[in-house]
Amino acid sequence: MTFETIHDLETPSVLIDLDLMEANIAVMQSRCDALGIAFRPHIKTHKIPDIARRQLEAGAKGIACQKVSEAEVFVDAGFDDIQIPYNIVGARKTRRLAALAKTAKVTVTVDSQPVIDGIAAAAQAAGSTIHMMVELVSLGQRTGTTPEDALALAQRIGASDYLRFAGVMVYPSDAAVRPRLLETLGLLEAAEIPVETVSGGGSGAVSAMDQLPELTEMRVGTCVFWDWNSVSAGYAGFDDCAMRVRASVVSANAPGRVILDSGSKSINSETIDGQFGYIVEYPTARIYKVNEEHGYVDFSACESMPAVGEIVHIIPVHTCVVTNLHNQLFGARGDNIEVIWDVSARGLVW
Amino acid sequence: MTFETIHDLETPSVLIDLDLMEANIAVMQSRCDALGIAFRPHIKTHKIPDIARRQLEAGAKGIACQKVSEAEVFVDAGFDDIQIPYNIVGARKTRRLAALAKTAKVTVTVDSQPVIDGIAAAAQAAGSTIHMMVELVSLGQRTGTTPEDALALAQRIGASDYLRFAGVMVYPSDAAVRPRLLETLGLLEAAEIPVETVSGGGSGAVSAMDQLPELTEMRVGTCVFWDWNSVSAGYAGFDDCAMRVRASVVSANAPGRVILDSGSKSINSETIDGQFGYIVEYPTARIYKVNEEHGYVDFSACESMPAVGEIVHIIPVHTCVVTNLHNQLFGARGDNIEVIWDVSARGLVW
Repeated sequence: MTFETIHDLETPSVLIDLDLMEANIAVMQSRCDALGIAFRPHIKTHKIPDIARRQLEAGAKGIACQKVSEAEVFVDAGFDDIQIPYNIVGARKTRRLAALAKTAKVTVTVDSQPVIDGIAAAAQAAGSTIHMMVELVSLGQRTGTTPEDALALAQRIGASDYLRFAGVMVYPSDAAVRPRLLETLGLLEAAEIPVETVSGGGSGAVSAMDQLPELTEMRVGTCVFWDWNSVSAGYAGFDDCAMRVRASVVSANAPGRVILDSGSKSINSETIDGQFGYIVEYPTARIYKVNEEHGYVDFSACESMPAVGEIVHIIPVHTCVVTNLHNQLFGARGDNIEVIWDVSARGLVW
Repeated sequence: MTFETIHDLETPSVLIDLDLMEANIAVMQSRCDALGIAFRPHIKTHKIPDIARRQLEAGAKGIACQKVSEAEVFVDAGFDDIQIPYNIVGARKTRRLAALAKTAKVTVTVDSQPVIDGIAAAAQAAGSTIHMMVELVSLGQRTGTTPEDALALAQRIGASDYLRFAGVMVYPSDAAVRPRLLETLGLLEAAEIPVETVSGGGSGAVSAMDQLPELTEMRVGTCVFWDWNSVSAGYAGFDDCAMRVRASVVSANAPGRVILDSGSKSINSETIDGQFGYIVEYPTARIYKVNEEHGYVDFSACESMPAVGEIVHIIPVHTCVVTNLHNQLFGARGDNIEVIWDVSARGLVW
């Protein structure tokens, strides 16, 4: 199939406004440059090597992936500095990780001794070196550990010939985590363990970068496209959102209610204020429900209502999960389609 | 990669218990047989031709898909009786639909005149015949129309040389829709328009089949696997649920809290009672939050808590959306992997 303009596209299709994406890439890079820290884009938002390459060309230092299988796609595409901010657990995964580390610089994060030991054994068997950061627990109460334990983990990492201690990671990196970070850095300094990298991340962290002067790098994914979550949190405006899902009206039989051909399989099922997406052409319309292939829209607050066959554009609540639902993204400049990307690292869960 | 038993699998992986799946297929077929109606499995739940073939071998009559692109996969795989219970809108889609109708019996549903006219034009251009049912609106207030309008649509369908009126469709098919269905059937009879099929559907409809004696066929997808939604609604028990997501513990640093490697990218973000899945080994554990690659589990109500590296099995809230997230499903009998299926119709949104 060939597509010359967005009007040739089937719906639902995911459009990326190239002007906005390029501006977003430049803005984030210059913010990191101004602070003197490295920008390491998280590829989870786009899952596309060509977009990561544009981020590197703008000045980014390496990339972050969330899965070994994603890292494999990017190493195959020529990327040689990959961070996986995740506890890699299980013999098959650690074996694949150690194999990757033969051809690229691979950095992972850990928050417990069993995770270190599993990776160390695989690195030893492969004869490769894996870089390892310790993760501190944050307000999000997800993964991560305490400052005391972080020191113990750093020492254990340092004791292996196949691991290299690479620093400290926090997610999200905000002012709340700073006391714990400072305590950890103090303990490491007292133990004479050098800290190469202090890695922060999270969309919110973008606004708080200057509150954590200890950071040496920032991992963020969403900033390449932004989304309604970002707008709602004040990180961006709707005018910055580069991703839009092009959708068609397939039913309009009831006053004020329209059904779109885009449901949870296209725009996902996450919500903001009970809404599943923001319709650019009808800002007061509300996508109040989704099934897999249907989006239910309330147009009662709008002056007019679209008819069957009319096309609308939806800014999704959360771009990363939308990318993961689609096999292609369409890069458009104005109405012209300039590039069709396969989402190469889509659906990679291992 | 070769996998001989489930213990060889990476996590997260989606297991299908073949004994349970086969029992589920047999049960649904025999319930339809007992009522004297056709069973038309909706493939949205598995998206895999081999599973649909097993359903046909058990006695099912044709299949239902939700998208033209899904129908294309199944026609390529040799299926010749395909229903798409959806308003197919847009010139590219109707052209592909009309092309499919040259090699398979294709039935769609419609709820408005513009949808009929678009499909009729494509069928005429292709010289093919498309079967068409009218959809009645139900309590769900999604697509569908009124009895009076259904009659008008049936007459319009009948007026085209390239369309064939195939009957009436309702979703979900429950007792509440019966007055509207009876009125429609009465209007069609008075107009001397024969009704070949009255098609019902929805997991809930399975329990209400005998309350709608007018049905001649039943479309249901979820009954092949069942899921927590089905259990919650009383359609099945956990012991009937054939799909389980195999997940690993990757962090266990806090009392009562464990982090799994399975988040919204693996088990989806739909919930029941604020929970994102049911852990078979720990029935009182609560998956209370997900990020894309993390599942947060509260084990405070459990007698014990798993350690890093331990594997658990999750019955998902909604199987269809889980299937759509994965590239493979693993069919297991006991611990042995008997078949690895590519999810051929995964991610097809057009």
